[in-house]
Amino acid sequence: MSRFFSGKHKGLVSYTPGEQPKIENLIKLNTNESPFPPSKKGQEEASKVLGKLNLYSDPEASILHNKLAEVLGVKASQVLATNGSDEILNFAFMAFCDESHPAVFPDITYGFYPVFAQLNNIPYEEIPLKENFTIDIKDYIGINKNIFIANPNAPTGIALGLDEIEEIVKSNPDNIVVIDEAYVDFGAESAVCLIDKYPNLLVTQTFSKSRSMAGARLGYGVASEELIADLNTIKYSTNPYNVNMMTMFAGYGMLCDEEYTQNNLKEIISVREYTVAELERLGFTVLSSKANFVFAKHCALSGEEVYSRLRENGILVRHFTKDRIKDYNRITIGRKADMEKMISVIENFI
Amino acid sequence: MSRFFSGKHKGLVSYTPGEQPKIENLIKLNTNESPFPPSKKGQEEASKVLGKLNLYSDPEASILHNKLAEVLGVKASQVLATNGSDEILNFAFMAFCDESHPAVFPDITYGFYPVFAQLNNIPYEEIPLKENFTIDIKDYIGINKNIFIANPNAPTGIALGLDEIEEIVKSNPDNIVVIDEAYVDFGAESAVCLIDKYPNLLVTQTFSKSRSMAGARLGYGVASEELIADLNTIKYSTNPYNVNMMTMFAGYGMLCDEEYTQNNLKEIISVREYTVAELERLGFTVLSSKANFVFAKHCALSGEEVYSRLRENGILVRHFTKDRIKDYNRITIGRKADMEKMISVIENFI
Repeated sequence: MSRFFSGKHKGLVSYTPGEQPKIENLIKLNTNESPFPPSKKGQEEASKVLGKLNLYSDPEASILHNKLAEVLGVKASQVLATNGSDEILNFAFMAFCDESHPAVFPDITYGFYPVFAQLNNIPYEEIPLKENFTIDIKDYIGINKNIFIANPNAPTGIALGLDEIEEIVKSNPDNIVVIDEAYVDFGAESAVCLIDKYPNLLVTQTFSKSRSMAGARLGYGVASEELIADLNTIKYSTNPYNVNMMTMFAGYGMLCDEEYTQNNLKEIISVREYTVAELERLGFTVLSSKANFVFAKHCALSGEEVYSRLRENGILVRHFTKDRIKDYNRITIGRKADMEKMISVIENFI
Repeated sequence: MSRFFSGKHKGLVSYTPGEQPKIENLIKLNTNESPFPPSKKGQEEASKVLGKLNLYSDPEASILHNKLAEVLGVKASQVLATNGSDEILNFAFMAFCDESHPAVFPDITYGFYPVFAQLNNIPYEEIPLKENFTIDIKDYIGINKNIFIANPNAPTGIALGLDEIEEIVKSNPDNIVVIDEAYVDFGAESAVCLIDKYPNLLVTQTFSKSRSMAGARLGYGVASEELIADLNTIKYSTNPYNVNMMTMFAGYGMLCDEEYTQNNLKEIISVREYTVAELERLGFTVLSSKANFVFAKHCALSGEEVYSRLRENGILVRHFTKDRIKDYNRITIGRKADMEKMISVIENFI
């Protein structure tokens, strides 16, 4: 830290992203990427604009917002695309949280929420998950604070039902409820259908997981026009051209290929069920996952040990050191062959 | 504004980007884009990663940082790439400015500085340019505030000399001086050579103008390792994967093609000199420009009138309504043929 760094950031601990290793031939199951490349149409659309990159992209991102609106069944003015969903989440903290509107979220969830809160000097509270790692929705009913819930939650993979989400949103009419649906496409219910009913609901989604575009950085928020207008004020005060032209068109192309995405989702869900069954056979407890990862602990080996043994064998999963979850590893669902390899490696070392 | 929008942003007026018109066949001279597409190598490098977008990009952006360091003659740890230079500028406001470290900049300059200050609730002061639109460096000597200077300045195009920049940096050792060099390649002197001497200097540059990549969003900061480390803390608390994979590789590719860039620069500078001479012949006063645009007012027609007449004829330039500069228009230097067309249109209506 230089002597010029502002004192207001004293104690800020930034986010540690999952390792992006530069080692060849590693089976990478640590950052919940899709094992499938973007669709041909997605790649083609991006490729078409390479010769036009000297021009700024459309700051209104019309081609993308219109297509997103069509796919989601909402109005284009109810959508805002961002540089990954991290950006829309940060915008939400910036726009709606302050000293008198603190943030709350579970103690075990996406590790970026407390970082955004600290960065923006917003008071926050972490509400413990139940012993079984589920959210007790009673903790969030009528609490009069801005709520951030990942659904399905990460790194547990456990999802709330739509009725439970609605109860939370309904009971906090004077506060924002952000439902972070990064993993929703792998089996949970989306709350997008509630945005016309609840002006305090913001749903965020991403192209990084189900739509094979982690490296392109594309996320978005869906909410009432009024909330989206506020988020646009933040966007136009931060980075009006936040989504670059290649990503905008790649995203548009991917949305034209819904069948490709749906087939990938089916495959990933099926491989997840295979992985869960095999891990259980080998003595793991696996939380019930509606995401493209599973969260698993072994009956005899520590989380750290499983992580290290896998790594020695060229398989990278994600291990968190936080006390409540240090016995677990978060394992991304990759291709069937990758998961078979992992199972056979585990079989060897236990 | 919804009732959920935080009171801390009361009065925030966001930035208005130059129009990105959806009309065909317009000659677009309003947002200082390069008239030349990215180089073949730039396009190819981006194209190669389209099939790998399912993976996250390297958050350390090593391939790009290493190449930038080589081209700039600095260490990779002295560079930080961002989602356009707007992002590195905002990071600088976030990292180094606060109640006790206010920001100062000229009254006529890049219109985003006051927006960043407001967004981050940072007190700021706008120092008037001299009557002739130049910066009086005496206004910035030893003022003990964080200084933001665009060099060349926008929308004037006027540049300070390196010795003048050094005087400012040297005389404010306890404050950050940010030199925003978005347009430096078109004829001004860069301050990058001073970063090892002054730990309080941050130089920002962009691929949007001289490197034909406005639509790809790529900017960067160059500074001492300590300042770059602070800016990285902000990056990792905001958006660790801030530069997407396509942009990262396109930028790398462009840097491999320095000859292409240098030839484009020569051409733009030569077309600028042609444009200045022609505008002066037609009764315009043109400020001395070291950028890829000129700032010009006519002896008889108002700025608004020139803007409108050009627009009626399919030529878009940028007009600002701010009182001191409303007689002027900022005209991007495009291809020779575009500028000839503009001159002949002006000749017809005056």
